[in-house]
Amino acid sequence: MINKLEYTDKNEIIFLDQSLLPQKEKYIKTRNYKDILSAIVQLKIRGAPLIGIAAAYGIVLGISNAKFESKKQQENFFYELLEDFRKSRPTAKNLFYALDRLQNAYELNRERAIDEIESIILDEADAIYNEDIELCRRIGVNGSDLIGESMNILTHCNTGELAAGGIGTALGIITTAIKQAKKIFVYADETRPLLQGSRLTAYELEQNAVDYELIVDSMAANLMKEGLVDCVIIGADRIASNGDVVNKVGSYSLAVNCKFHNVPFYVAAPSTTIDFDINSGEEIIIEERDPDEVRTINGYMITEENAPVLNPAFDLVPNELVTAIVTEYKVHYPPYNFKGIKHLFRAYVQSVSHADDFNKEEK
Amino acid sequence: MINKLEYTDKNEIIFLDQSLLPQKEKYIKTRNYKDILSAIVQLKIRGAPLIGIAAAYGIVLGISNAKFESKKQQENFFYELLEDFRKSRPTAKNLFYALDRLQNAYELNRERAIDEIESIILDEADAIYNEDIELCRRIGVNGSDLIGESMNILTHCNTGELAAGGIGTALGIITTAIKQAKKIFVYADETRPLLQGSRLTAYELEQNAVDYELIVDSMAANLMKEGLVDCVIIGADRIASNGDVVNKVGSYSLAVNCKFHNVPFYVAAPSTTIDFDINSGEEIIIEERDPDEVRTINGYMITEENAPVLNPAFDLVPNELVTAIVTEYKVHYPPYNFKGIKHLFRAYVQSVSHADDFNKEEK
Repeated sequence: MINKLEYTDKNEIIFLDQSLLPQKEKYIKTRNYKDILSAIVQLKIRGAPLIGIAAAYGIVLGISNAKFESKKQQENFFYELLEDFRKSRPTAKNLFYALDRLQNAYELNRERAIDEIESIILDEADAIYNEDIELCRRIGVNGSDLIGESMNILTHCNTGELAAGGIGTALGIITTAIKQAKKIFVYADETRPLLQGSRLTAYELEQNAVDYELIVDSMAANLMKEGLVDCVIIGADRIASNGDVVNKVGSYSLAVNCKFHNVPFYVAAPSTTIDFDINSGEEIIIEERDPDEVRTINGYMITEENAPVLNPAFDLVPNELVTAIVTEYKVHYPPYNFKGIKHLFRAYVQSVSHADDFNKEEK
Repeated sequence: MINKLEYTDKNEIIFLDQSLLPQKEKYIKTRNYKDILSAIVQLKIRGAPLIGIAAAYGIVLGISNAKFESKKQQENFFYELLEDFRKSRPTAKNLFYALDRLQNAYELNRERAIDEIESIILDEADAIYNEDIELCRRIGVNGSDLIGESMNILTHCNTGELAAGGIGTALGIITTAIKQAKKIFVYADETRPLLQGSRLTAYELEQNAVDYELIVDSMAANLMKEGLVDCVIIGADRIASNGDVVNKVGSYSLAVNCKFHNVPFYVAAPSTTIDFDINSGEEIIIEERDPDEVRTINGYMITEENAPVLNPAFDLVPNELVTAIVTEYKVHYPPYNFKGIKHLFRAYVQSVSHADDFNKEEK
């Protein structure tokens, strides 16, 4: 298991700087919550589930390392922190899910002592992390039902251990299927501009000794034409109640090509990625990022300095292009109506919070 | 006009090293034909029409700077040169077209003196260059008929002045339409792995003060979904008699997305790109290039050092996805049968060889 992020008993966060992978495995240790904020903004910490976890611990870090002279002071600072992290990245639902949970835990306990609040928030962050591990595990198990005994799977961006608390989402399904002794070959597209495919997914595939080949993003269609892709599995940053999926830019092009070539297009995400309150993906804010992400690679300018660039981080895959969505709960097929089954997810996440008991029951 | 390649009266070739653009405008001067060979292999000189022109002058360079003690020696060397250049890149038809023309000119004149042969080959190379200028001009004029008064056009790779003797093919249509006072906005995709879009097309668009934005390749589909693309125009490296098109990797994905979004997909190329002898694109050899093109950018390793990579330089767009093909002769619509009209092209190219007379006649 890759150690990507850890909250220590010395009130520090130690995290792996994913922007430097695979060349450098550099860990950053900090007591300053602003380092976590900027790490999220700069994609040193990325992947929708991990963003949520990191933001939760970032707030714990801020609270635990500050000195408060009054409860009011603590409260003000806590709400400032929530606000700062809410503004860090707009699209991944998991971020807002985690912040809402922290806020809720705080508000249920706001009368308690300063120290107690600290430990309540830490417990909630730990719960989010531990739940994600279990959500990922279940996504892996559920999703592996879609995977045949021998398959070529194409994936986009990075959706493995580096992107989540647990084993990941789409890539977690792949590694779970491999553990079931299925014979899997992975095509990983590089995922411009930030190359999460060639840098991070390839790194994870190497670590797990999975057979794979890297391709440029525009090459995926050709593999499908040649019958070399049995399915595409991607993760998600936010899923609307109707099953519209927002994920890393390039996802839509893959979905169109899947439709055209009659290749199943699967999305894997925990319910913490689902925005139950919106009916359509059109309501989701797509983050527009710095043009220099396209103009430069590792600080090296590849275009003219001021070349005009359109650089959305994500795109929207309409539900009619999504063959199935895998959550911790089950494999969902169209027509999707997540709002209608929201209560089932919530009960499920709560059961997962007591995962150890739950696992025992299962056996 | 960008001075991309010139054969001087001192028997030198001066060429722009396109692999360094846009950061450096470095010209290389050489009397050694091997520098031209390696420049073609390394894409310092690239673009199907320009590859043909450069190979022709490369052979002139080899012949002109060698000392021959007999005609036989000259002949042997000439055929060796043809062979070397034939092996430089396998896909662009223009390369073989140019080499065949040189060989033909030689064989029609093989009894002549050593010096005369030299000048006959140079004349033929000059003719190929000058004809290409005229072919490009006519493609621009013909293709501009497809362009409305105000259009957003998406293009792939580089197909402008840097890719040809003249103004280029797909990009030549765009610049011609702009000269006709049409209002054109260009979306240029970066074209991984070698970034001909963000490095070269963006450079040419800047030079010509054309409004444009750069996107990553996988973003094109989204622009189509949002109705922001009125048509796609690309060039070609080889076109089969049935209209199947082989062009830079990523072309097929664009064609599929055009079909899905009901956006016209145009291909522009001179008849020197058409392989009249093959009936289907399936017969075309797709060059597989060095994995390091995907693993590195300007020598900077972005993946793990030995990451397995699939790196075809081109892909095949089947004719049913091609709305129209623009040549110097006219705009062709499906069903394509270039073999059946080969004689018309040949007569046309010959008329173009006397382009000045021809232009007078036209007026």
